[in-house]
Amino acid sequence: MALGMTERLKPIHAAVRDMVRHEITPAGEEFLAEVPKEGRWVYTARQKEILEGLKATAKSRKLWNFWLTDSERGYGLSTVEYAYLAEEMGKTHLGAETFNCSAPDTGNMEVFERYCTPEQQAPWLPRLLDGEIRSAYLMTEPDVASSDATNVSMPCVADGDDYVLNGEKWWSSGAGDPRCEIYIVMVKTGGDELPKHKRHSMILVPADTPGIEILRAMTVYGDDDAPHGHMHIRFTDVRVPKSAMILEEGRGFEVAQGRLGPGRIHHCMRAIGHAEAALEMMCARSLRREAFGKPLAQLGANYDIIAKCRMDIEMARLLCLKAAWMMDQGDQRAAAPWISQIKVVAPNVALSVIDEAVQMFGGEGISQDTPLARMWTHVRTLRLADGPDAVHRRQVARWELAKHTQQKV
Amino acid sequence: MALGMTERLKPIHAAVRDMVRHEITPAGEEFLAEVPKEGRWVYTARQKEILEGLKATAKSRKLWNFWLTDSERGYGLSTVEYAYLAEEMGKTHLGAETFNCSAPDTGNMEVFERYCTPEQQAPWLPRLLDGEIRSAYLMTEPDVASSDATNVSMPCVADGDDYVLNGEKWWSSGAGDPRCEIYIVMVKTGGDELPKHKRHSMILVPADTPGIEILRAMTVYGDDDAPHGHMHIRFTDVRVPKSAMILEEGRGFEVAQGRLGPGRIHHCMRAIGHAEAALEMMCARSLRREAFGKPLAQLGANYDIIAKCRMDIEMARLLCLKAAWMMDQGDQRAAAPWISQIKVVAPNVALSVIDEAVQMFGGEGISQDTPLARMWTHVRTLRLADGPDAVHRRQVARWELAKHTQQKV
Amino acid sequence: MALGMTERLKPIHAAVRDMVRHEITPAGEEFLAEVPKEGRWVYTARQKEILEGLKATAKSRKLWNFWLTDSERGYGLSTVEYAYLAEEMGKTHLGAETFNCSAPDTGNMEVFERYCTPEQQAPWLPRLLDGEIRSAYLMTEPDVASSDATNVSMPCVADGDDYVLNGEKWWSSGAGDPRCEIYIVMVKTGGDELPKHKRHSMILVPADTPGIEILRAMTVYGDDDAPHGHMHIRFTDVRVPKSAMILEEGRGFEVAQGRLGPGRIHHCMRAIGHAEAALEMMCARSLRREAFGKPLAQLGANYDIIAKCRMDIEMARLLCLKAAWMMDQGDQRAAAPWISQIKVVAPNVALSVIDEAVQMFGGEGISQDTPLARMWTHVRTLRLADGPDAVHRRQVARWELAKHTQQKV
Amino acid sequence: MALGMTERLKPIHAAVRDMVRHEITPAGEEFLAEVPKEGRWVYTARQKEILEGLKATAKSRKLWNFWLTDSERGYGLSTVEYAYLAEEMGKTHLGAETFNCSAPDTGNMEVFERYCTPEQQAPWLPRLLDGEIRSAYLMTEPDVASSDATNVSMPCVADGDDYVLNGEKWWSSGAGDPRCEIYIVMVKTGGDELPKHKRHSMILVPADTPGIEILRAMTVYGDDDAPHGHMHIRFTDVRVPKSAMILEEGRGFEVAQGRLGPGRIHHCMRAIGHAEAALEMMCARSLRREAFGKPLAQLGANYDIIAKCRMDIEMARLLCLKAAWMMDQGDQRAAAPWISQIKVVAPNVALSVIDEAVQMFGGEGISQDTPLARMWTHVRTLRLADGPDAVHRRQVARWELAKHTQQKV
Repeated sequence: MALGMTERLKPIHAAVRDMVRHEITPAGEEFLAEVPKEGRWVYTARQKEILEGLKATAKSRKLWNFWLTDSERGYGLSTVEYAYLAEEMGKTHLGAETFNCSAPDTGNMEVFERYCTPEQQAPWLPRLLDGEIRSAYLMTEPDVASSDATNVSMPCVADGDDYVLNGEKWWSSGAGDPRCEIYIVMVKTGGDELPKHKRHSMILVPADTPGIEILRAMTVYGDDDAPHGHMHIRFTDVRVPKSAMILEEGRGFEVAQGRLGPGRIHHCMRAIGHAEAALEMMCARSLRREAFGKPLAQLGANYDIIAKCRMDIEMARLLCLKAAWMMDQGDQRAAAPWISQIKVVAPNVALSVIDEAVQMFGGEGISQDTPLARMWTHVRTLRLADGPDAVHRRQVARWELAKHTQQKV
Repeated sequence: MALGMTERLKPIHAAVRDMVRHEITPAGEEFLAEVPKEGRWVYTARQKEILEGLKATAKSRKLWNFWLTDSERGYGLSTVEYAYLAEEMGKTHLGAETFNCSAPDTGNMEVFERYCTPEQQAPWLPRLLDGEIRSAYLMTEPDVASSDATNVSMPCVADGDDYVLNGEKWWSSGAGDPRCEIYIVMVKTGGDELPKHKRHSMILVPADTPGIEILRAMTVYGDDDAPHGHMHIRFTDVRVPKSAMILEEGRGFEVAQGRLGPGRIHHCMRAIGHAEAALEMMCARSLRREAFGKPLAQLGANYDIIAKCRMDIEMARLLCLKAAWMMDQGDQRAAAPWISQIKVVAPNVALSVIDEAVQMFGGEGISQDTPLARMWTHVRTLRLADGPDAVHRRQVARWELAKHTQQKV
Repeated sequence: MALGMTERLKPIHAAVRDMVRHEITPAGEEFLAEVPKEGRWVYTARQKEILEGLKATAKSRKLWNFWLTDSERGYGLSTVEYAYLAEEMGKTHLGAETFNCSAPDTGNMEVFERYCTPEQQAPWLPRLLDGEIRSAYLMTEPDVASSDATNVSMPCVADGDDYVLNGEKWWSSGAGDPRCEIYIVMVKTGGDELPKHKRHSMILVPADTPGIEILRAMTVYGDDDAPHGHMHIRFTDVRVPKSAMILEEGRGFEVAQGRLGPGRIHHCMRAIGHAEAALEMMCARSLRREAFGKPLAQLGANYDIIAKCRMDIEMARLLCLKAAWMMDQGDQRAAAPWISQIKVVAPNVALSVIDEAVQMFGGEGISQDTPLARMWTHVRTLRLADGPDAVHRRQVARWELAKHTQQKV
Repeated sequence: MALGMTERLKPIHAAVRDMVRHEITPAGEEFLAEVPKEGRWVYTARQKEILEGLKATAKSRKLWNFWLTDSERGYGLSTVEYAYLAEEMGKTHLGAETFNCSAPDTGNMEVFERYCTPEQQAPWLPRLLDGEIRSAYLMTEPDVASSDATNVSMPCVADGDDYVLNGEKWWSSGAGDPRCEIYIVMVKTGGDELPKHKRHSMILVPADTPGIEILRAMTVYGDDDAPHGHMHIRFTDVRVPKSAMILEEGRGFEVAQGRLGPGRIHHCMRAIGHAEAALEMMCARSLRREAFGKPLAQLGANYDIIAKCRMDIEMARLLCLKAAWMMDQGDQRAAAPWISQIKVVAPNVALSVIDEAVQMFGGEGISQDTPLARMWTHVRTLRLADGPDAVHRRQVARWELAKHTQQKV
């Protein structure tokens, strides 16, 4: 169980880490400052310049598409190797996008790679791989408990050569971005006559298809995450050709499962990156700022707080690396218990570390003047997205108990 | 130690509770929906209509200025009695303002009442008591650790018949409101030659004094709390007459202490109100929403989570009531340890209850579609405002240890 | 809701507190040191002298049988008043027994008072009230989950004028004491044909009845709590006359409920006393002991730890007092949710405070050289006795949710 | 960073695991049942038979002295490999001793190996390696804060060809065992004229030296851990030849550091073994036992509790393995921060898991009828032994902050 950095990874990791620290972090702050200038869902000229500049630099250094772990198109990194890079990218805004490793695009590109026909891939995959366009993944719906994905209910009805979709999706992350051109949509194609996990399908819907209406941006504790956005979208008689169906009707859960495993690891390692960045900020602040005649570090329980953050991060990272290693062994089913574990652990650790950092920064911490508040709201969504904590804890317990019930047989 | 509701309080409490639930809550949601329409720091005609309508109704029912606990101008409620009302007001947006019991105005009005001359009171206090204008309290500064208030550094220099102020204040809550006309400002008037707590003063500065510039609104996890706002303000050669000084130079801490005690109790009881509202929402949701074929209430640890929330709220409320009762005994110094305790306990309990409620609501919980996210960010500021947790815990420990060191003497 | 000390209580409380601190505490340590000398389940002459001396003193000062809250035989204290005394008694070994307020005797005496006939009372109650003998309450059984008391299974079969009992009981607290002469035993008298809560009965069984065999003392983390003891007892054809039945067959749960409410409050307030004593020890130690050139108090997070203990104790005590006050209102059913709350809260708070005190004392804390370890094991049993935490949390949640389901009706 | 089991380890691990489960566990229970029969500090014939039988079996299977990680005398296992075995040994009483891998003997044998002359080794080391005798390590003293080991104060004064020792040691683990023949004692040989870490020495003292008096056994929450024991020992003019000094005067801390690093890893991995065993017991119980008509597993928060235990154990184990791996890299100084981390994490995780298991077992859990209570008290000592939690947290924070202060230079 090799969880360390490999020799081939070390120079890549150093290059990513340095670019994150010295180039992307300052650029990301400037990028965000541009958001309100011309409207939240458009790019200013300066925003384009910043983002495309970073991407061009990354590409020129061959720091691109690391997530293609199993593919010949990418570096062929293992999940463990990629995890180390995801942590670095998680340390800053624009970190992942600079290297074309953003969610939800990496997951969507994996769906294109693994499950789509060349005809389905052609208009979208090359441009996604090239960072030219972006994509969204539409699953969650306003009126059902999406923690149980079998509740997804958007009807997708065959009509001649087409399918017709009606209903609403929300929390469609990235759909606010003007560069977002393609949606992968989970829909309901079968009824009660089918087994629970055979009733849903995945289908490709171009963002500009008539009948699609972006109702609003969902906010996360007041933050709309513009220009990325978590959009609430209405579908009214949205019509796509039958060839837009991925695999075939009823295989939606199969696609979803293939998509989610690596994605959860990436999310979790980026959350670890958030936590590392927050701890670093907290320590620097505690040494720099004084109150009652002493640096904050020497006041109250701050040593103990810092120690707890360090220990929690170390443990969460090791667990994520083990989950990544399990994934690399090729049996996603065997890896599942570890992925559920990190899905609970990593966001909660990151939230707690960021919260302590906020407390060390005082008013500045909750404000727009540090990245901490934005990091917190971002990670907070991970306790719900891709399955809330409660669902993953339940899974972990079921696997644990199954060791005993199987022993009895 | 009578901590229950008195007979005279019961009808008032019922009237406030019912108005909060049936009138203010729906109106508050509509009020917030108006915020983006014409700019964040102006009132739309509809906003004025909503707010003034609620206030007129409250006044007509004689539900007004409850906070004047020791005064003949108000109800003459005890702090314990007021605490029960503060909890109800905390359950909803506009709850406190409807009854003219908002922070920071109540604290500011107390300063006017207790420490100001009739000449200082005349232009402002009657209009504040009447709900015609609002006020702000400017203490915190960007570049110093305000957890140690002796760090406050804005110079206030005598110049002929005037004082001249220069520097920056931030987190000036309520200063974004177009109706905010008067600031109470903590300034530095003495240097190292004076004892640490004799170097500061409180001074009255009308909001429209030349040289005052509102630089921006601070955001709390992305939320600017418009149209109330937590403003960052620059003072450039701001000139006020010497008669604007409260009491006299060097008595700023005396005024601050008199202001903060009751204010902290009000904040804490409103936080309890937030928590009660969140628990009620959480329970209702857990019964209404289904996943995996059962109401959420029956899944996972939800019973235990609900029980924990209930127990935590009960205890935090009792502690707040005891602190209020201590305050009512007339010795603010003796009450101080309890006020420090609730200042730590109440916000943390409320945050934890709201966080569980968010988790029960899923994506809806973090969004603009429930009041939960806004409640959370609001309460989160209380772990920093009026002294961060760490400072209050330190005080509690000092009092505890003093029991032993004094015994030894 | 008057939760403070009444005027009439103050002198009694002071007398109890002083006797606990100055007389009982040193005597209790000597008493425990005698335990191993002549065998664990006998009293040495010195033990008798210590204990009877303390009791005689208490009686002579009219500090006796405070628990008789509703009775003319006692002080007629309210439950709130008694709670304050229970806290003081909880601070030391022999604290409760000195004043004839020990568990399980107080609960057993209440059963005699409320539910037994004069004939049943005659041989036991006067001697119990006088502190001459002790008693035990036999409910829990080795092979069933006693958290669900309907599982109690000891058969009690009518045979002529007698009942015949067979089976095993354990955790029969106090049955190790050579002065323990009478057992109140929960037995099963009805089968599946009856409703679940009508199948059990309470019956009086003298400790020296033939067929009773004390198998062993249960240990609590290695401590046998001699000479009190938590005994494992076997009944083999134990025969008592039919007149030994309390009330009548099938009313066992009615008796159990009447017995448990006040008992839980007493237990919880004694646990608060444990916690207060531990905090006092912890603070004194932190000022006295030095490491790294400073008193322990000034090292690490110790201020924060002390503050947390103080806040937790304050809140737990207030909650217990509220539960006591609810009980005093005369509606035990209405008080039940608060009793469940304190049953969870008080032992957990006490355990956590004691654990921190242990940590402050280092090796001494876990050893026989301070009362801390014994206090911890004693309180640890309270998380299981009279219903484990999980069962009480469940009750709290059910009451909370019932507010909503009833609103719907 | 290879943290998995190596191929060469797998068969050894399987052999140890199977022997622990099927042979040592039942034998260990019988061994403990013998303790009270003939006195707590002697071995009954049956105890000798059990223990020597297990050891002979282990030896015959070449499962012996695994801890000799760097030596040619042992298996030459890496610390990571040994860690996996230590976990298995931690699952049961007698687990470590069966394989001659008990504390404090392994640490003492390391001291003999690394720091002692052949003349010092001759009378003890071969017999220790052979499992013929046992040893103790005497450091902690009753009247000083041993968390700061520079407080150790037992004077060791040169007198002719001898040293003379006076004073008291306590918590001398294993000194209760009649087979314990040799003590390694930390003494003070230098005064204030020397640097703080040059004032102490390690010296060899045979257990039967005149002037040594075992005062009593310290108990841990009431458990004396017989026949191993944690003894309180008085030294009165105890005289040993100068050749008994290890290395030379003033090098006590050097020896202590070399001894503690691996020892802490072993302790922590055995604690993980305790936790694994407790979780296994908890799950089995939750499926087997019923209340309210359901298996306990399906009641309340038990799924969530089980999941939390699993996640905590996984993380703590990975952290221990990483610390072991750091140790294997050969730079003990670089490994130190991780050893401090696990010293905090592993015992706390184990205590929390065992506590949940106790709660699942109810009264049985706190009693002598399961190993849980004994496991808990055993692990509880680890939060104090070899440095209390607070000292290790402080170290972790210092290393974290040092990253920043060094960057500034």
